[in-house]
Amino acid sequence: MKENLRFGVIGGGSWGTAIVKMLSENLDQLSWYMRSDSAIRHLQKENHNPNYLSSVEFNVSKLHLSNDMNSVVAESDVLVFAIPSAFLEAELQQLSTSLKDKIIFSAIKGIVPESGLIVGEHFHDEYQIPFENIGVLTGPCHAEEVALERLSYLTIACADASKAELVANTLQSHYIRTKISDDIIGTEYAAMLKNIYAIAAGIAHGLGYGDNFQSVLMSNAIREMKRFIDKVYKMKRNINNSAYLGDLLVTGYSVFSRNRMFGNMIGKGYTVKSAMMEMNMVAEGYYATKSAHLINQNRIKKTKTPIINAVYQILYENKNPKKVFRKLTEKLN
Amino acid sequence: MKENLRFGVIGGGSWGTAIVKMLSENLDQLSWYMRSDSAIRHLQKENHNPNYLSSVEFNVSKLHLSNDMNSVVAESDVLVFAIPSAFLEAELQQLSTSLKDKIIFSAIKGIVPESGLIVGEHFHDEYQIPFENIGVLTGPCHAEEVALERLSYLTIACADASKAELVANTLQSHYIRTKISDDIIGTEYAAMLKNIYAIAAGIAHGLGYGDNFQSVLMSNAIREMKRFIDKVYKMKRNINNSAYLGDLLVTGYSVFSRNRMFGNMIGKGYTVKSAMMEMNMVAEGYYATKSAHLINQNRIKKTKTPIINAVYQILYENKNPKKVFRKLTEKLN
Repeated sequence: MKENLRFGVIGGGSWGTAIVKMLSENLDQLSWYMRSDSAIRHLQKENHNPNYLSSVEFNVSKLHLSNDMNSVVAESDVLVFAIPSAFLEAELQQLSTSLKDKIIFSAIKGIVPESGLIVGEHFHDEYQIPFENIGVLTGPCHAEEVALERLSYLTIACADASKAELVANTLQSHYIRTKISDDIIGTEYAAMLKNIYAIAAGIAHGLGYGDNFQSVLMSNAIREMKRFIDKVYKMKRNINNSAYLGDLLVTGYSVFSRNRMFGNMIGKGYTVKSAMMEMNMVAEGYYATKSAHLINQNRIKKTKTPIINAVYQILYENKNPKKVFRKLTEKLN
Repeated sequence: MKENLRFGVIGGGSWGTAIVKMLSENLDQLSWYMRSDSAIRHLQKENHNPNYLSSVEFNVSKLHLSNDMNSVVAESDVLVFAIPSAFLEAELQQLSTSLKDKIIFSAIKGIVPESGLIVGEHFHDEYQIPFENIGVLTGPCHAEEVALERLSYLTIACADASKAELVANTLQSHYIRTKISDDIIGTEYAAMLKNIYAIAAGIAHGLGYGDNFQSVLMSNAIREMKRFIDKVYKMKRNINNSAYLGDLLVTGYSVFSRNRMFGNMIGKGYTVKSAMMEMNMVAEGYYATKSAHLINQNRIKKTKTPIINAVYQILYENKNPKKVFRKLTEKLN
């Protein structure tokens, strides 16, 4: 790798904003793509993102802000993608600059709806990026706590350890600790699956189940996650590491998680459509549920995934949440 | 085993009250020992325990209430102990009736201070009860949610599966699901250790750490618990089952947990003594911390237990919580 690689962040949401804050602690220059031109102008004048984590002050002299993704891609060696998976392909379609020779880290938690692939696989299969140039940046990490500089731990996964180290070193600071991993497939699936389990936790809460049940649900969820991921890609991994269990817990127990909130509305009786309209957005776990269900359906030897199945039946088969969860409780232990 | 074994519950606290409620769903007669004579009189007149879970109405015609432990022990075949571990030995000392031939289930989460043993070991070593007559009743289960009849899962552990089944069948109902296990040592240590981790979670919260850190702490805690228990008694167990991970989560995430509350006060700057005085009680995890530390100290090959060590230093060596936790954060990942 050449020295002084240039970083570029793709995405102006809360997680993208948090990542730029973390990188800014260590870098003198970085590029930041966001769609909204008015947000860029606000940032340049007021030193903060008007829409997300607005308490975070940036030293804008460090930032090359642009709403032209091509220029950000062209000038960057390491790209960190932090846009919702549902919009990734549409954004990439507009790209005329080649991604070849770029190091691509995904901070996206989800499945690309167009391909049904996790983001790393999508870049590999659709854009011919070799796996040693693809990495994953995962929590457990709420962006809001990064804004408050509350101690958080990130896992940086890449098949090429030197690239994982590079990104890890560039992210860490007095409030960020990092750990590297070679399990890009497992960490990414964990980040995707946990959103389904957060929806399940929300549904349970909405239906009136309590803390005792929530802990049983999470205990079953981590076992289900392990079975699922082991089937996708078998390797030695401790599912109780922060990137898997920690990430599940921070989402499953968070009242701020949008996936959990979405589930909660479903449990309280909203239809899927009305919950989405009320939230004015689609929770990542909605797509993840469909993909995870499909992946498991297509397996010759299926994994036992009672929680994913229950969420799928509620979200996609219009089944009654109360009845589905009553059946689910008999399959948990 | 003879048929129609008589059950007796020892303890009138919230957990004892919850257990009597659960057993009452299935039994026509049972015995219940509590120390307070005025609570017994209130229960007989008003059909509820005045001090704990007072919303729960009992059919008192089913209950033989007594503040004479000897008579309750004498008339019972299966005894469920649900008193704080700190008071167990003092209560047992008053007993003139033999415990021989009794089936003893512990619903106590902790260490007996006098012997430094978990309750099952204490009954075995000090009262010569054979292990096949000793069992453990464990959560994840807040008594308050049993009172509300919110679906909860219990694990009933006994070396003799038929006795585990008997107790499990007698506890289960439309709001209680049960699972049996042969890991009496592991489930009991888990129930004890989780209180230490709940204190740690409380300290972290009191010091201002956020949800990201809490999830990392819990992810490290379950790994530490596994290492600790595997050293005490190696057997095939899935540490992510409800009796271990579930129990850790329901306590570690509960703002009602007395252990977490105790830790929170310590983190906010209370001394150990003043926190105990303010709470008007001693959190079980306080003793558990000392015992777990001692057990590990006495090992020739010590297990890595950074969280237990940190809590020990704060509670017993008067170390500064802020400094101890700053060091601890470097050992977590």
